[in-house]
Amino acid sequence: MRKSLHLHVVACHRTLTKTLHFHSFSSQRSCTFLGPNLPDVWVPREENSSPHTLLPQKFQWANDGHSAAILEGKAIAKQIKLKVADEISRMKSEIGKFPKLAVVLVGDRRDSHTFIHIKLKACEKVGIETVVSELPENCTENELLNVVSSFNDDKDVHGIVVQLPLPQHLDEERIVNVVSPEKDVDGFHPLNIGNLAIRGRKPFFIPCASKSCIELLLRHGVEIKGKRVAIIGRSKIAGLPTSLLLQRHHATVSLLHAYTKNPEQITSEADIVVADVGIPNIVRGNWIKKGAVIIDLGTNQVKDPSSQVFRITGDVCFEEAVKVASAITPVPGGVGPVTISMLLANTLDSAKRAFGMV
Amino acid sequence: MRKSLHLHVVACHRTLTKTLHFHSFSSQRSCTFLGPNLPDVWVPREENSSPHTLLPQKFQWANDGHSAAILEGKAIAKQIKLKVADEISRMKSEIGKFPKLAVVLVGDRRDSHTFIHIKLKACEKVGIETVVSELPENCTENELLNVVSSFNDDKDVHGIVVQLPLPQHLDEERIVNVVSPEKDVDGFHPLNIGNLAIRGRKPFFIPCASKSCIELLLRHGVEIKGKRVAIIGRSKIAGLPTSLLLQRHHATVSLLHAYTKNPEQITSEADIVVADVGIPNIVRGNWIKKGAVIIDLGTNQVKDPSSQVFRITGDVCFEEAVKVASAITPVPGGVGPVTISMLLANTLDSAKRAFGMV
Repeated sequence: MRKSLHLHVVACHRTLTKTLHFHSFSSQRSCTFLGPNLPDVWVPREENSSPHTLLPQKFQWANDGHSAAILEGKAIAKQIKLKVADEISRMKSEIGKFPKLAVVLVGDRRDSHTFIHIKLKACEKVGIETVVSELPENCTENELLNVVSSFNDDKDVHGIVVQLPLPQHLDEERIVNVVSPEKDVDGFHPLNIGNLAIRGRKPFFIPCASKSCIELLLRHGVEIKGKRVAIIGRSKIAGLPTSLLLQRHHATVSLLHAYTKNPEQITSEADIVVADVGIPNIVRGNWIKKGAVIIDLGTNQVKDPSSQVFRITGDVCFEEAVKVASAITPVPGGVGPVTISMLLANTLDSAKRAFGMV
Repeated sequence: MRKSLHLHVVACHRTLTKTLHFHSFSSQRSCTFLGPNLPDVWVPREENSSPHTLLPQKFQWANDGHSAAILEGKAIAKQIKLKVADEISRMKSEIGKFPKLAVVLVGDRRDSHTFIHIKLKACEKVGIETVVSELPENCTENELLNVVSSFNDDKDVHGIVVQLPLPQHLDEERIVNVVSPEKDVDGFHPLNIGNLAIRGRKPFFIPCASKSCIELLLRHGVEIKGKRVAIIGRSKIAGLPTSLLLQRHHATVSLLHAYTKNPEQITSEADIVVADVGIPNIVRGNWIKKGAVIIDLGTNQVKDPSSQVFRITGDVCFEEAVKVASAITPVPGGVGPVTISMLLANTLDSAKRAFGMV
């Protein structure tokens, strides 16, 4: 019966585009680059000048047969840090205040200590004050919660980082949930993730690795809107939030993971590939469409068979990908440095909010 | 220099699968169908019997050249309602308590009144008490916020539904955010959306339309894990949360929208297609892979040119799709009835939590 009702409604793709376009714009477009930090479409701070000073303004989606452009992160990180330092300097001179980041470190993991050291040093360089709370490996959950709560209550603290992973006996979810969403400069709180997922909403913070991807793309002039994106890996700290952020930028995102049966096939259709797998060189050259842009979030420690020295390598087989892609981030020196600078930017944002400057 | 470092790391897909699989399972698998409601993998209540009583247990991903199986929602909705009514009846007899749903309605929109009428009637049938607060079209935001807050504070109220859309002068985001996440039976609060997005987390509630999609698939024996899914449209109430939920079920999800340049091409690669566009018959037969399963979330009012009577029609051109797909939900009678039953289930869940029964 239902089938006999043939309604002659011709719906063409033009109509779809028009209608959805109407609904897909938020009224919240007032964000600045380091300001309260979710745009419906990201608006770089230097929007009136050229934001893309590192490569030609119009990105070329092509590989000329020789080698991809290298999306270096160091220069961008330096630019951002200078900007942050400048704002903090003006903040200090104008209102006599400055941002402060609290860092919580549990146990003796060497890698965690290294990461914290890098973060503290970066803070120091731009003028962000830091306070570190170190707890022993065998601390109780309540001891840790008390530390986090005290930072939540401290009005002089604008950002809280709980270095992950935590020892097994501590409930990571519970700890992350206790960090005030307004001081969650890592952007991992579910309220911030929810507001990142929902169009038109503004999380207080976006995870630093995801912001870093966007920065690398936009500052090199890579258009995101309408592009097909394959994100390989769905970690809470990188792959998943990056899928949400790129979707907010109107990319068509496919999120691949361990259960994806043909990751190479889907990846080979993508204009932009984001790798967040944690396995060195898993993404091979033949996974990549000619002219695609590759963002490699991998930071894998691999022993060089000849020198027996450990080196950091990415998830993408650089030597193969560079011959196919139009642009690729190196590892190290790509996403990593920008990610650190994003933590500084998030902390500055938070202080500006606290001081009523945005 | 970096390029010269060729590390002979052979990373095959088997390794990827194994490694990610290890990380992708949550320890929280204790959920029941109507229980606190996010599984990492959904476990239907009737897990020890056959949950798929409506079609053969092993779903056939094929179209036999005649016509797709019709994924009727009415029978499933009836089953769920019976189950909810049974649990409420036992709750009443055992502890003398029952679930209560508060409904807030602003203004005179005819469709909103219709939806509310349907919800209230469904509640009545299963034994959920209801309270309705009607506010005039020109009410202030504070008046509405006060009503919502009073329901938040009322310990006898277990679920709150603010019927959307609200009049233009009211800030929908602000209102949705004020509903207690623990009473947010619509599942629209950003905290619940965030916990839906993050693997291993449990939102208090999942949006009813998204739960409905999963129910329709699982109860008809359609496997989700590892399947490619195209979701067309990213509304906050259906498309977006459905993309998150299907990802939690380990589908490989691509989220399509107005800026997607070739929706028909991506859709034609999908094993499961979810349409949430709001344009009648936009998804044509030639968008669909032979043997795909189609979930149509569209509820478009269209005037029949011959009778001049308005009929509800979906986003999928049913007459074309039914010849290609292996299964398809009808509109009306597919997702719609199940969605209502999910509101009842969410309200029951909330009451069970409040009464310490889960």
